[in-house]
Amino acid sequence: MSCLERRIAQGRGDETADLVLRGGRVLDLVTGDMIPGDVAICGDAIVGIGEDYDGREAIDVEGLILVPGFIDTHLHIESSMITPLEFDRCVTPKGITTAICDPHEMANVIGVEGIRYFQKASEHALMDIRIQLSSCVPSTEMETAGARIDAEDLKLLKGHPSGIGLAEFMNYPGIIHRDPEVMDKLRLFDGQHVDGHCPQLSGRDLNAYCSAGIRTEHEATTAEEAREKLQKGMRVLIREGSVSKDLRALQPVLTDLTASYMCLCTDDRNPLDMAEYGHLDYMIRTLMELGCSPLSVYRAAALSAAEAFGLKDRGQIAPGRRADIVALGSLENCDAKLVLCAGKVADEAAFSRRGQVEPVGLDSVRAPTVRPEDFRHESKVERTSVIGIVEGKIITEHLIENIPVKCGDKRPDHARDLARIAVVERHGKNGNIARGFVRGFEIKRGAMASSICHDHHNIVCVGIDYSDMAVSVNRLAEIKGGIVVADGGAVLAEIALPVAGLMSLEPFESVRDGLLELRNAARSLGISLEEPFLQMAFLALPVIPSLKITDHGLVDVDLFQIIS
Amino acid sequence: MSCLERRIAQGRGDETADLVLRGGRVLDLVTGDMIPGDVAICGDAIVGIGEDYDGREAIDVEGLILVPGFIDTHLHIESSMITPLEFDRCVTPKGITTAICDPHEMANVIGVEGIRYFQKASEHALMDIRIQLSSCVPSTEMETAGARIDAEDLKLLKGHPSGIGLAEFMNYPGIIHRDPEVMDKLRLFDGQHVDGHCPQLSGRDLNAYCSAGIRTEHEATTAEEAREKLQKGMRVLIREGSVSKDLRALQPVLTDLTASYMCLCTDDRNPLDMAEYGHLDYMIRTLMELGCSPLSVYRAAALSAAEAFGLKDRGQIAPGRRADIVALGSLENCDAKLVLCAGKVADEAAFSRRGQVEPVGLDSVRAPTVRPEDFRHESKVERTSVIGIVEGKIITEHLIENIPVKCGDKRPDHARDLARIAVVERHGKNGNIARGFVRGFEIKRGAMASSICHDHHNIVCVGIDYSDMAVSVNRLAEIKGGIVVADGGAVLAEIALPVAGLMSLEPFESVRDGLLELRNAARSLGISLEEPFLQMAFLALPVIPSLKITDHGLVDVDLFQIIS
Repeated sequence: MSCLERRIAQGRGDETADLVLRGGRVLDLVTGDMIPGDVAICGDAIVGIGEDYDGREAIDVEGLILVPGFIDTHLHIESSMITPLEFDRCVTPKGITTAICDPHEMANVIGVEGIRYFQKASEHALMDIRIQLSSCVPSTEMETAGARIDAEDLKLLKGHPSGIGLAEFMNYPGIIHRDPEVMDKLRLFDGQHVDGHCPQLSGRDLNAYCSAGIRTEHEATTAEEAREKLQKGMRVLIREGSVSKDLRALQPVLTDLTASYMCLCTDDRNPLDMAEYGHLDYMIRTLMELGCSPLSVYRAAALSAAEAFGLKDRGQIAPGRRADIVALGSLENCDAKLVLCAGKVADEAAFSRRGQVEPVGLDSVRAPTVRPEDFRHESKVERTSVIGIVEGKIITEHLIENIPVKCGDKRPDHARDLARIAVVERHGKNGNIARGFVRGFEIKRGAMASSICHDHHNIVCVGIDYSDMAVSVNRLAEIKGGIVVADGGAVLAEIALPVAGLMSLEPFESVRDGLLELRNAARSLGISLEEPFLQMAFLALPVIPSLKITDHGLVDVDLFQIIS
Repeated sequence: MSCLERRIAQGRGDETADLVLRGGRVLDLVTGDMIPGDVAICGDAIVGIGEDYDGREAIDVEGLILVPGFIDTHLHIESSMITPLEFDRCVTPKGITTAICDPHEMANVIGVEGIRYFQKASEHALMDIRIQLSSCVPSTEMETAGARIDAEDLKLLKGHPSGIGLAEFMNYPGIIHRDPEVMDKLRLFDGQHVDGHCPQLSGRDLNAYCSAGIRTEHEATTAEEAREKLQKGMRVLIREGSVSKDLRALQPVLTDLTASYMCLCTDDRNPLDMAEYGHLDYMIRTLMELGCSPLSVYRAAALSAAEAFGLKDRGQIAPGRRADIVALGSLENCDAKLVLCAGKVADEAAFSRRGQVEPVGLDSVRAPTVRPEDFRHESKVERTSVIGIVEGKIITEHLIENIPVKCGDKRPDHARDLARIAVVERHGKNGNIARGFVRGFEIKRGAMASSICHDHHNIVCVGIDYSDMAVSVNRLAEIKGGIVVADGGAVLAEIALPVAGLMSLEPFESVRDGLLELRNAARSLGISLEEPFLQMAFLALPVIPSLKITDHGLVDVDLFQIIS
């Protein structure tokens, strides 16, 4: 009997169900009703609710509340610093059963091969990893990336079953100014989903961006911005990453009235946060604590998310949908006691049965050997643009400071919280080194460097001491990428991320422990930020206002040009 | 400049907009906000809201409220008794800008040619007529239709730009019992939209039906039924036809919480009701009168409808969406002062500019000439199944009455409100005549007959007098189909519907006037029902419980078999 016939037969009870969840109650995300009764599952699909069923297998979920699996509507798995399959093992047990990812970090380093790596991983993961095709690699022409993805490459990558359209279109100036290459990419995905990215865009500029047919967006950082985007036909994705934390600002917008048009996403979240706070489950708990109704939050986390991205086969515990189910002790705690992905229980046994995928990009760090004097900032004028960090945001302020020139060099000054920031090209293309100032780390000594450096993933380094900056950057080349903290001419702590300089080959538990050590090392330098490494990495992303730095120099994002 | 570039340029204000609506306010269906400012339109698309725009053309909508065009999510245009293009002229000015129709009445009479006729009409209409492909022609094997549509025919009809999947799958017993032919049709539309129809289905049977992947449904007649269907993942379409009136029963289910998952439809609505009460505009007004919030009702009428059927390009007045706009004097009155379809003003000039489509099926009535004695009900047992009409519903009751046999015939008895009902095969296939009893018309004399006779569209006739029944049926053959009322051996009133015996070639105003005369004639026979003709027509539809009649005989729909 074929799959369709078996589903109908098991739903009707003419045939014994493959699996029955017994004793729980289903939270219906449409009516808000709590529905008692068995949940019958045939293969990967739910085929019955609200009735008694016989099952070849049965799981007791007595006293638990069943909700549909959560959907992370926008993320870069690379930011978890672990491989896609390790990410699966890390977050699926928290109830995340679908992750709509954009592998553009990997693509910026090794191109098409990086996207194919994610596509292959999606074939083995327990959760459903959906791969949007990266739209902006490199994100702009003001940076040196390791690779470039053009419309022809995208054509070759289309058609994989994990596909879900074009990933966040970050080059919003390219859209509103109708760059020919940008228009080609949009036309290639005409009628398909094109995900958005347009921080602080408003008024007629936002009208223009929406006129290109873009209907999902995750860069709203204020309630007002979210509201305008909703009014203009965008589904707004509330983001809570490790750096970009928009949940508190956007929470008031999530009501029973808007919930069908809002979703949740993490964008960039590290394993330390996943371990200490959680993933989407953390967002769900916190939104309820802040006053959102459980229905609005769970709806946003599953049903609305599914609808926003055309995943009509999921988002509700209802017959005919994918059996992505989370059994919770309570709605308030969002404490997953059992997670099913397409009818399979997500436990260690299931994770260990998965096929494996060979890592790629293992030799991607080709940085020049640097000397302390490479970090001098030679200049004759005191008036200086300084990147001002906004904690918990990836947007920055464009500060102006007068900094004295000594021996032709404008030196860092920890008393004024003015640290050197440098970006060193590491793809073996030109050996560029760009230098500037940053305020906000409160770093007093030493240096830290990382090959996670959005989105071009060169090496970004922040420090007070030029020798420590050289130590940390040179160490990164030795360990094939990662994060290093140095002080007194020696490495204090490090983590190796040899997969494209972005991801570890270790289990998430080791990466979490390594990050803890790194965080402590950073604190010993005086750094006060809760998450200094991702915060540093985003200072290099020239599609987020206002002042950023790439290997080409300082970027005024509002002007969309290099200013030094 | 291509369309995409022009839209973006006009949205940004870099180029003058093609058209600007000035001075109104937009009701945003997501946030509920009223947004002042111009609405800029480029070609068929909205490109800007909430800002000032220059336009090559401008329309003053000062003081009006702009809402997105309404979407009738399920209807048979044939039931309006006018051609598709005349239907367009009739209802578009009321604000209906999309009609998702199932041409299965036409298909039951002349098959594939009937569906192609609608597809062609959709290319010329001002509103967007979307054609779902008829799934169940004939609706069952217990009737003689003029044509049959099988999976091979559906393959040929797929791919027209008006397509939107498979139309209402009425053969719900075929689904839950996994009939091979039914499974073939479902597989042919795997991953596409398959519309539902499963009156009174509940429990495990409904689970089975939903397991087939069907996610929209319009046959709920009670709040309880609607709620179960919502819980099981179906979008519920509230229907208010000329006979099936479910709006009052379902209104309590439409709340701010459920509105994103509910839609409106008319299914079968005649031009008399359209003229006297309205179309979806009538439903919108009435739902608000009954206590629904304006936001919930307008959301169901547009945004939710668009999402339910995957029409992502409409449903909100937002940049990048189709310029389907209704300007209202007030939300409460739903009084369209101006309607735009894809950026074109729907006025008489625009209607007269449309291309025309040649009518088809002009010689479809091939009924035998009948004599009065053909309507005798020969029987020996007094115990008789009687169809019991439920006014305002197309479901019926299965009544049991003792009816005396006189001279071998069980005669109608108007004192007990027991009229003869007969169905005469009219496709020239077998000349079948089936006879039975019906209660509920309160007809005292004469007869009425119609070639609208769902869904096989044979001739259905209800009467007290056998001679008048013969007069009315024979007259239908002469006028190539329509509706006839006869009394005293002569025709009292009639309307000719020569297009497949279903639709007039006249303007809707004439059809409305003709129906008024017919209704008065029916009243002169004692008939009390407000809409006797469609009510009679639905007594022949064997996929709606409980007792129906086709040319094969009486159908017990609950048993799904012929019982006499």
